[in-house]
Formats: sequence, structure tokens, C-alpha cells
Amino acid sequence: MAKYCIGIDLGGTFTKFGLMDESGRVSSMFQIPTVLDKGGEGLIDLIVLGGNRLMSQRSLTRDDVLGIGIGSPGPISIKRGMILMLPNIPGMENLALCDLVSRRMNLPVVLENDANAAAYGEYLCGAGKGVSDMVMLTLGTGIGSGIIIEGRIHHGRHEIGAELGHMIVEADGEKCNCGQLGCLERYSSATFLTLYAARLLQSDSRPSVLREMTKSGQALDARHIVQAHKQGDELATQVWLRAMKFLAIGCINICRIFDPDEIVLAGGLVNAGSDLLDPLTKLYESMHWKLTGVMTPIKLARLGSDAGVIGAAGVAWTALGSGPPDCSAHLDEPRNEK
Amino acid sequence: MAKYCIGIDLGGTFTKFGLMDESGRVSSMFQIPTVLDKGGEGLIDLIVLGGNRLMSQRSLTRDDVLGIGIGSPGPISIKRGMILMLPNIPGMENLALCDLVSRRMNLPVVLENDANAAAYGEYLCGAGKGVSDMVMLTLGTGIGSGIIIEGRIHHGRHEIGAELGHMIVEADGEKCNCGQLGCLERYSSATFLTLYAARLLQSDSRPSVLREMTKSGQALDARHIVQAHKQGDELATQVWLRAMKFLAIGCINICRIFDPDEIVLAGGLVNAGSDLLDPLTKLYESMHWKLTGVMTPIKLARLGSDAGVIGAAGVAWTALGSGPPDCSAHLDEPRNEK
Repeated sequence: MAKYCIGIDLGGTFTKFGLMDESGRVSSMFQIPTVLDKGGEGLIDLIVLGGNRLMSQRSLTRDDVLGIGIGSPGPISIKRGMILMLPNIPGMENLALCDLVSRRMNLPVVLENDANAAAYGEYLCGAGKGVSDMVMLTLGTGIGSGIIIEGRIHHGRHEIGAELGHMIVEADGEKCNCGQLGCLERYSSATFLTLYAARLLQSDSRPSVLREMTKSGQALDARHIVQAHKQGDELATQVWLRAMKFLAIGCINICRIFDPDEIVLAGGLVNAGSDLLDPLTKLYESMHWKLTGVMTPIKLARLGSDAGVIGAAGVAWTALGSGPPDCSAHLDEPRNEK
Repeated sequence: MAKYCIGIDLGGTFTKFGLMDESGRVSSMFQIPTVLDKGGEGLIDLIVLGGNRLMSQRSLTRDDVLGIGIGSPGPISIKRGMILMLPNIPGMENLALCDLVSRRMNLPVVLENDANAAAYGEYLCGAGKGVSDMVMLTLGTGIGSGIIIEGRIHHGRHEIGAELGHMIVEADGEKCNCGQLGCLERYSSATFLTLYAARLLQSDSRPSVLREMTKSGQALDARHIVQAHKQGDELATQVWLRAMKFLAIGCINICRIFDPDEIVLAGGLVNAGSDLLDPLTKLYESMHWKLTGVMTPIKLARLGSDAGVIGAAGVAWTALGSGPPDCSAHLDEPRNEK
């Protein structure tokens, strides 16, 4: 009787493995440095190595495992189980990941993009546990997103939907890396809020601790800005609150469009904790429709960098088992062992 | 054996009735002036009168009818089958429409909001026939919307989603009637593009045929602007292209968020035909992501003011029958008899 699904979160630096049981508990997590210089074959070898290690560690046979879920950066084709390309990494074009891993492991394999997998992880076992509709924004280098409607991940008809970071929130706004003007990502991602600070530091004569922080040649990053904002630095606060304002607009739009149970924020910026959530919520509530009586909560993600591997395993359970794992048993438990 | 569903489109001026068979054909359509000054009871009487007239015209008994679908302006609660209120019309608060009509007609009744019903009508029998995912914007006094994902209408968890007209597309933009700043509706609805023209006519010294058109005291409306734009009037063209630009942004956002099969435009502004579609498509295509190779088509609605009654009947078929009516048989037929 199959009792587990293997979850794999394919990352640019590390690939993470974990085992999920039918109650959604993930255990035996470990990670391996991702091999990217040996083409598709090297990547398949790595996945097979990790999968087999996981099974041998727990003395599992193929019969104990329902299948494998892999979360991958994109662009990918979920329907065809393929990595279409990995930007800047040669040899990954049109890689039939599911087929190749499935043949080597003799197990069914399902693919999901990494942002969706992380959202699904939070939905099953994290900040979204117990709800039906959840939208997650991942605030990192860019802004990724995952949309869960009535328990199902929304992909779009050509598998290119759920790109909420590229929702235009400022007509004729600043140019995003994607070519569009005024994308949410252009204002509220770590990369672009840092760029805005750097620009201000050059053009603005106000004193700022940000100048001290980067005096020794250290590159400015979002952590400096949060830290300086906490210290009451005027310029840093301007930068941070601008990012929060656009993020609040993004969250308002999510309510108007989806009306979910909740909005979840993940990614590096979330480490700012209440320094993010407090000003964001204040701006969001000030913009919100009062007449409906509904104030959709914004929550911080709970699973951190484990969300991807948990979600990948959850995607496999849902696709290969008889529906999603039943996580209700450990609804209020602290985080699982690693 | 039940062979029909009754569709009812509750409008502020007229209430429209029609009969849908299992192949999605709607016939015997007629309308009755909507009685709004006799409270909830008057409204129920009207619906029952129309429903009975429809059945007697076609010599149908209760056994021939599966049920009734009603499209209503809102706010409503679909889950509870209630009209919560009709703005500016007293006596309609918390009206248990479905229960009351069901008891009088001895038939099951389902409720849908009017924008969703119209979108569902286009989806089943109009511009969206044969697709899976469709988003419709209704460009009228305001901008309404309907979202169909994998054949299902998206309502949101508190039934307040699918308000794409109130998606913010201009941070710190102009104030919308809803209280938010920079809503799509504030730029591309008939009301607001007309308001923009009126403002320009006051502040701008350029000659414009719009001044001639409204000389005799006639109120400026969107038709004047389209007509003047067609005549090459510079000011009117500026107004019209601004509305089209924001509409293009709205359509781009729909692609990023939903990635549907197609976008459908309905409502009064659509009467402009190619004067709307041509500049809109040009702007939309210029903004669109090239790298995906996907150019989601924008189409004009095909059912005009019949979409609501067709969709209402379709909603009843889907809820009360064994799924949506099978409209494939008349996929390329001209419009049905009325």
C-alpha cells in the first residue's frame, strides 16, 4: 500500500528532497547542490540520486511510494512534463523531465512550477491551511505568484497565467525587465526597491545611513533598506513605503479580482516581518472597500524555504492519490521535523 | 421529461424572459417593463407573471421545465438566493428571491448576478462558444466583468470577486465612484470617458465638433465621442485613445493573471465596433509579451442585450441539469429566433 510521495524542489543552488505521508507531514528533508553544468542528463542523475537516497534512508520500496512531485523554475510545460528552458543554463531546452525521471525511478512523476508549488505548500500545510481560495505573492528578486481557487492551482490555458508580479499598476510607469511599463514587480520586488534607493542616494542630498552601510563597497540590498527604515532613516523609509504602497495596490487588486480567503506573502522580503506587514496592512486597509464588510487578511508565509518541497510533494499526492493529503490532523501543530 | 429552463434577466427598465432547450437554443423571448415601485412583492409578481406566460405560450407544464435561472443586478447572495439590495430602490433589502419565486412557481430557482449571467451566455452561445476559459468586460456606465475558468463562473469566497472594473491600473490615479484611486472603470467606462471629454472641452481651446454636437443642450455621451473620433476630431481622438489605452492595460492584466482562451468585450461601447477593436488591439499587441508566442484574442460580444437572459437560463441548466447545455450543434448557426 502506497503511503508516501516524494517532493523535490529544484533550485538554482540547491535541490531539496522530502517525503510526505497521507496526512501531509513532510519528513526526511535534505538538500543537494544543484548540478547545472552537466546538462539535462546531470540534472536527471541528481534527481534520481536524491530520490533513491530518500527511499533507502527510510527503507522504502517502490510499493511504498505513490509518486514524485517536482517543482521547477520555468518556463516549463506541466501538461507535457517538460522544462522548456532554464534561463542562462544551456542544455536544459525541452527536457522531458517527467518521462526521464519516471523511467529511471519506475514511479509516476508530476511537474509544477516552483512558485505554484510553494503556494500549494503554504495552502496545504502553512499559512493557507484550512482555506479554500488563497493567492500568494513571493517577494524576492522578482515577484512570483501562485493562485489557488477552490483547492486547485490556476495555470491558465497556455500555462502562462498567475504572473501577478507583471500586473500593470501604473500606466506609463517605469520599464520592467519583461518589457512592460509599470508592473507591480517594478516597484515592490527586492531588486527594484533597492534600485530605487540607489537612484535616490545619487540624486538626493539628504543624509542617509544607507551611505554608511555600503561605504566599504558592500552592495546595497533590501535588508539594508529595512534596517535603515527601522532606524528612522528618512530616505530608506521613503523607499520602503513606496514599495509597500504598490504592494498594497497589488493586494487590493487581488481582492477585486479573486476575492480569496486570504493573501499570503512569501520570499526574502518577508524576513522584514512586522516592518513589512504593519505599514502594508495600514495602506491596504486605507484603500479597501468599506461597504462590503470584508477585510481579506494578508498573512506571512509560514514554511519559509521548505514551502517548495512540501508543495511539490502535495501536488503529487493530489494528482496521484485520491485528492489532497488530509493535513487537518496537524492543523495547529508546530512545524514538522526536518 | 424536463426539456427546458426558463431564463430571466432582471433589468432596471425591462425584465427579459426566454426558454432554453438542452442544446442551448433560446426561444420565445419577450420583455416586460420592470415594476420597481411595489417592493419585493411586486417584483416577485412580475417574475411569476412572465414565467407563467412563457410556459402557457408554449403549452408547457411544470414537468417540461427543469427550473428557472435569474440574473439580477446586485449586490446579491448567490449562495443564499437573495437580493441584498437594489441601489436606490427601496423595499428590495434581503429579498429571498429564489425561495419566493420557487414557492410560487413550484420549480427550483437559481440566482446569478447579471454581469456573470451575461458572460456565461456569451460563453455558452456567443463569442466564447467552444472555449474553456473566458474573461468578459462589460463597458457601459461602469465596467462589469465575468470570469469563466474551466467552464465555471468565478465568484470569490465572499461573492465579491470578479470586479475587474475596479482593478487599479494607475497608482494615485483619479478617484473612482467606489472610493479607490485609479480604477480601470475610471478611465475606460462610457461615463468617465465622457466626463474626461467634458473636462477637456472646458479647459482646452482646440476646436472640436463635440461642441457643435452638444450645442442644442444635448448631453455629451460616448456615442458623440466615437462619432467625432471617426470624423478625425483631434480632441475626441485624444479622449477615445486614452480610454483604449487603459482598456488595453486591463486586457494585458487579464492575460497575466488568468491567461484565458480569449477576452470578450460587451456593453454599450462595443457598438463602436472596429472603432473600438482596431485601436484597442493595436495598443494591446504593442504592450504584449512577445516571448510567450501567445496573443490572446480580444473579441466583441455576439449576443447583445440577449446575453443576460441566455446566460441566466444556461446557469439554470448547468446547476439543475446534468451540466451545461450542449451548444455544439448550433456552433456556427446564425442567432436563434426570438
